Amino acid sequence: MKFTHTSNGSLVILSGGLDSTVCMAIARKAESGNLVAVTFDYGQKARVEIDRAAQIAGHYGCEHIVVALDVSRWGGSSLVDPGLEIPSADQGQQGSIPNTYVPARNIIFLSVALGICEARDLSHAYIGVNSLDYSGYPDCRPEFIEAFSKVARVGQKRGIEGNPVSIVTPLISMSKAEIIEVGQQLNAPLGLSWSCYNNFSAPCGTCESCYLRSKGFSQVGIEDESLI
Amino acid sequence: MKFTHTSNGSLVILSGGLDSTVCMAIARKAESGNLVAVTFDYGQKARVEIDRAAQIAGHYGCEHIVVALDVSRWGGSSLVDPGLEIPSADQGQQGSIPNTYVPARNIIFLSVALGICEARDLSHAYIGVNSLDYSGYPDCRPEFIEAFSKVARVGQKRGIEGNPVSIVTPLISMSKAEIIEVGQQLNAPLGLSWSCYNNFSAPCGTCESCYLRSKGFSQVGIEDESLI
Repeated sequence: MKFTHTSNGSLVILSGGLDSTVCMAIARKAESGNLVAVTFDYGQKARVEIDRAAQIAGHYGCEHIVVALDVSRWGGSSLVDPGLEIPSADQGQQGSIPNTYVPARNIIFLSVALGICEARDLSHAYIGVNSLDYSGYPDCRPEFIEAFSKVARVGQKRGIEGNPVSIVTPLISMSKAEIIEVGQQLNAPLGLSWSCYNNFSAPCGTCESCYLRSKGFSQVGIEDESLI
Repeated sequence: MKFTHTSNGSLVILSGGLDSTVCMAIARKAESGNLVAVTFDYGQKARVEIDRAAQIAGHYGCEHIVVALDVSRWGGSSLVDPGLEIPSADQGQQGSIPNTYVPARNIIFLSVALGICEARDLSHAYIGVNSLDYSGYPDCRPEFIEAFSKVARVGQKRGIEGNPVSIVTPLISMSKAEIIEVGQQLNAPLGLSWSCYNNFSAPCGTCESCYLRSKGFSQVGIEDESLI
């Protein structure tokens, strides 16, 4: 995997989870210039992930912008709606999208990222979406990224001037185990990352995000430092 | 022009300007069910337009959601950046995009609209973009709307289930005069709308938005009630 690009700066969407932490490590390796981490406070129940994102941004010594946009006002997801329970991984139905799906989440995240990139002259926007070990969310798939990249080309000033923001998705085809291995190679602070959908003092161990994380660490055969 | 559609509810992006007010009138005519107006408090200097949007939503007796997302934190536009002066209409250069362009504004607005539509089961999202009497913003053009509609089809749960949110742009090919005429026909409260980019007690009369509005009313040959 080649981790370099010519750039005048990159933005990383950093949720504080495992995938975005590895995405951050890849972006730091690739980007010799300015790196800006952006975290969304969208009303998620797992408040702890915002704090973890700040720690991870701090680890890399880069600017950290927390964007507040409370989607819990219109709800539609168990990640933000107090009236909807977060299901355990084994409650999911094969092939169906679980209620942890947040309507238009990555569409909103990437839209704001395009705005910041254009205002701050950053040429790349990294997002750690993954369409292999994931929950079936439509906004994690290559088709979506391709469609959104076209929006950047035709809907922004820098796009129509021939210099569109490039959406970079280094993890999109990796398994969770591969993501962890790349994170290890790059000395990403995996122990700081928080994947659990809940906001307990320790990860619940039963939600789908905990399940996928745990499976990945088992496959690699290493300990998850965040649990120590 | 046909103003009807089968729907389980519509959302209108309502800035409080002339175009979005007419767009609201068209949506109210077309939508027999639930209608939700959404206004963005994005840090715009023209604070008055948010109040006007509330009055217009009140006129139609529909729910009004004000979404706060302060893009002035990263700036990049004279509409939000205190350090950038809003130019007068005659300061613009033919063919260039003026500094009133807000990076990714309509991309962000439509993204949030998709989220609200999906969470609240609204099938149509109206936006009063116009690519004729406009300032050359790339996110007001048909190419952009087409690209963004594809994002709704492939990036949302309801999109991949075959029921994507439909982005509706009734004004996109109209002149400002035609927009005013349609507004008149539909008894839209044009006098409540606010187009000026500045936040003075009365419209400045010199910015491009005032210029386009004034030209439209002159062409139709009626008085602009907002100036009385």
